[in-house]
Amino acid sequence: MKPIQVGLLGIGTVGSGVFNVLQRNQEEIRRRAGRGIEVTMVADLDVERARAVAGANVQVVNDARAVIANPDIDIVVELIGGYGIAKALVLEAIAAGKHVVTANKALLAVHGTEIFAAASAKGVMVAFEAAVAGGIPIIKALREGLTANRIQWIAGIINGTTNFILSEMRDKGLDFDVVLKEAQRLGYAEADPTFDIEGVDAAHKATIMSAIAFGIPVQFDKAYVEGITQLAGADIKYAEQLGYRIKLLGIAKRRSGADADGVELRVHPTLIPAKRLIANVEGAMNAVVVQADAVGTTLYYGKGAGSEPTASAVIADLVDITRLASADPEHRVPYLAFQPHTLDKAQAQLPVLPASEFATSYYLRLRVADQAGVLAKVTGLLAGAGISIDAVLQREADEVGGEGSTQTDLIILTHETREGTMNDAIAQMQALPTVLAPITRIRKEELN
Amino acid sequence: MKPIQVGLLGIGTVGSGVFNVLQRNQEEIRRRAGRGIEVTMVADLDVERARAVAGANVQVVNDARAVIANPDIDIVVELIGGYGIAKALVLEAIAAGKHVVTANKALLAVHGTEIFAAASAKGVMVAFEAAVAGGIPIIKALREGLTANRIQWIAGIINGTTNFILSEMRDKGLDFDVVLKEAQRLGYAEADPTFDIEGVDAAHKATIMSAIAFGIPVQFDKAYVEGITQLAGADIKYAEQLGYRIKLLGIAKRRSGADADGVELRVHPTLIPAKRLIANVEGAMNAVVVQADAVGTTLYYGKGAGSEPTASAVIADLVDITRLASADPEHRVPYLAFQPHTLDKAQAQLPVLPASEFATSYYLRLRVADQAGVLAKVTGLLAGAGISIDAVLQREADEVGGEGSTQTDLIILTHETREGTMNDAIAQMQALPTVLAPITRIRKEELN
Repeated sequence: MKPIQVGLLGIGTVGSGVFNVLQRNQEEIRRRAGRGIEVTMVADLDVERARAVAGANVQVVNDARAVIANPDIDIVVELIGGYGIAKALVLEAIAAGKHVVTANKALLAVHGTEIFAAASAKGVMVAFEAAVAGGIPIIKALREGLTANRIQWIAGIINGTTNFILSEMRDKGLDFDVVLKEAQRLGYAEADPTFDIEGVDAAHKATIMSAIAFGIPVQFDKAYVEGITQLAGADIKYAEQLGYRIKLLGIAKRRSGADADGVELRVHPTLIPAKRLIANVEGAMNAVVVQADAVGTTLYYGKGAGSEPTASAVIADLVDITRLASADPEHRVPYLAFQPHTLDKAQAQLPVLPASEFATSYYLRLRVADQAGVLAKVTGLLAGAGISIDAVLQREADEVGGEGSTQTDLIILTHETREGTMNDAIAQMQALPTVLAPITRIRKEELN
Repeated sequence: MKPIQVGLLGIGTVGSGVFNVLQRNQEEIRRRAGRGIEVTMVADLDVERARAVAGANVQVVNDARAVIANPDIDIVVELIGGYGIAKALVLEAIAAGKHVVTANKALLAVHGTEIFAAASAKGVMVAFEAAVAGGIPIIKALREGLTANRIQWIAGIINGTTNFILSEMRDKGLDFDVVLKEAQRLGYAEADPTFDIEGVDAAHKATIMSAIAFGIPVQFDKAYVEGITQLAGADIKYAEQLGYRIKLLGIAKRRSGADADGVELRVHPTLIPAKRLIANVEGAMNAVVVQADAVGTTLYYGKGAGSEPTASAVIADLVDITRLASADPEHRVPYLAFQPHTLDKAQAQLPVLPASEFATSYYLRLRVADQAGVLAKVTGLLAGAGISIDAVLQREADEVGGEGSTQTDLIILTHETREGTMNDAIAQMQALPTVLAPITRIRKEELN
């Protein structure tokens, strides 16, 4: 059987990886797929660079639409990124009857519903293992490996840039701004790091995982997103003293019961017990923990970015598509793990909850005057709100200013409560004259 | 479309889990599979117990062959275990044109070649996610998630019983025999624990993974198997002082180069750096680390045994089969990840190596007389054999016997060497009059 023909849209970091790994491991890949997989056409604005990577046997063009129009191309791999031209090209490739592989988490988290509907109508596959956690086969685990389970929650370190920054802040006791500059110098953070450090990238990935885990449509617009830019070194240190690490987690949690039926979809810095495996995932590495009713806790760890790790995921999709290209749609795995016609009903039954409905526990840091009665006032307010306290850490007073006035940090860990309740309690505590600075609030998850 | 019909051979711990999870999550599973999956017939020698689990709507028989003979049954799930009757029944089910799901690692590691050949001839699937690492979808990750890669090595904690015992020995400073009894009392070890503690179970699983990773046939008879029964508490303590943990690992490693082209397939207690994630996998949990050329290191963690974790894997296979039952064989994933007709050639090119060809580093513990010159003699012998030393730990002498004679433990960590070379060096050291007891040798892997 002749090789399946692949066209790459974009041959930068990931595209080069795809091309090189397909070349290097072509024999092993053919032995697995039962058929050769060949990149025969590449579109890139930088035609010279593309020629340098792809060599003389590959047709290089600067117009992505020429790849889509080529009747010999079976699979289009979209590696352009973003919501703009990438969306148009993916939809055009689908309309042309091509199968599509994409690493574009932003596109799928925002426009997935439209894209999967178009693909379903044309009977083509859209595969996206590379869109979440790079080389870790987490999409396959969720879509196929855990199909027996009712998934309860997913919590993942799914952005390498922020995990690198948090690891460095903890290891070296440095502040965010300093470490960000170092990360940019080392290539772990981009020149414009906004999507990473503000949590948007992690939220794209968490959105995709929430859909696959719970059988709901992608709903990025309803995700709660909080990055790491406001995180102080002091909080990392206090968390450590209390036996916790702070990680930027993407969380998708199913809630059911008397209070609320729905899904929490949130990205934010999170205290997690230092003894958990995921708390020990350092540097730019990724890991995803999945809690499901039959299997219990499973964890998946690996490189979440980079040329060849991401290429590993793209090529796994190419192999799957090669195998199923001539099969009926019913033989294929549904795009978002669940049969598409069931998603709307699930969305109604399992809405994405607003932040005020989150149920979690909290780390609070209050800068307070070192006076008698402050702790009693603060804990009295929490008790009045029905929030119970798990632990308190009061630092020795440090002198500031003149006239003998002193301030101190008061750290409180709470048990689980409703976020709306906590917001009200924080507003009340903030109004106390002995609370001298904005209160720091970081969510805490036990992940057990 | 009417539900796919499943017959269970055996409804003990795992079978009950399969039945219960399929019932409890039937709606979610149907939404994923696109079709209902129902257990409609069960064979178990204990018909009463089977009826109690399966209820009145399921046909219960005491003859497994009645399930295989039932033309309405699409998939037979073999949960009997062992090489005997299970093998006959699996082959009969295949001959009857049934798809087969099995959790039987022993059967596949020993008779896999025959079973897969029979299945291939009949055009039926044989799926076995539950055979390795219980609920962790490691077979799927290796067969499908990492298809882009040339896999270099796999190292796994793939036997929960022995990991529980080793964790307890380390935590509580207890000896093997004491902990084994505790494990049996708690249900973590069977009344006859031989297959677990002697490493046979782990070797079955490592054998299956070696085939899927490297595209070779299952060759359990060539596996090197060493259990944990000889492991002393002292070695766990010394390892800890040197920054290592001791775990029973199943290892499959590709070797290529001037010295040897082949596969190391081995199960034995192993020192691994305490800072590795897998070194912190405690109790009965399982984890598998995979090193591959494109993706780098990935790790998969979860429950390796138990009713519902194992059922999770069995049902994932049922969903895959449900989806592909009416597809052509070419649309399915090859049994051992690689096209069957390519395995024999690979076996010739990549033979399983004898133990003397292993390349690894070592932990050695020598009980020596506390005399001047002993360390020089021992290190001189190692140098003469071309084995270089990484670290030495000499304990203070402890008094034994009368007349002021003293003994001490000498611990040596070596760099990588050939096992045959190490065997010779150990024989020479053992012959020294100042070496007072059999030398302890434990292999060491950095896993980086």
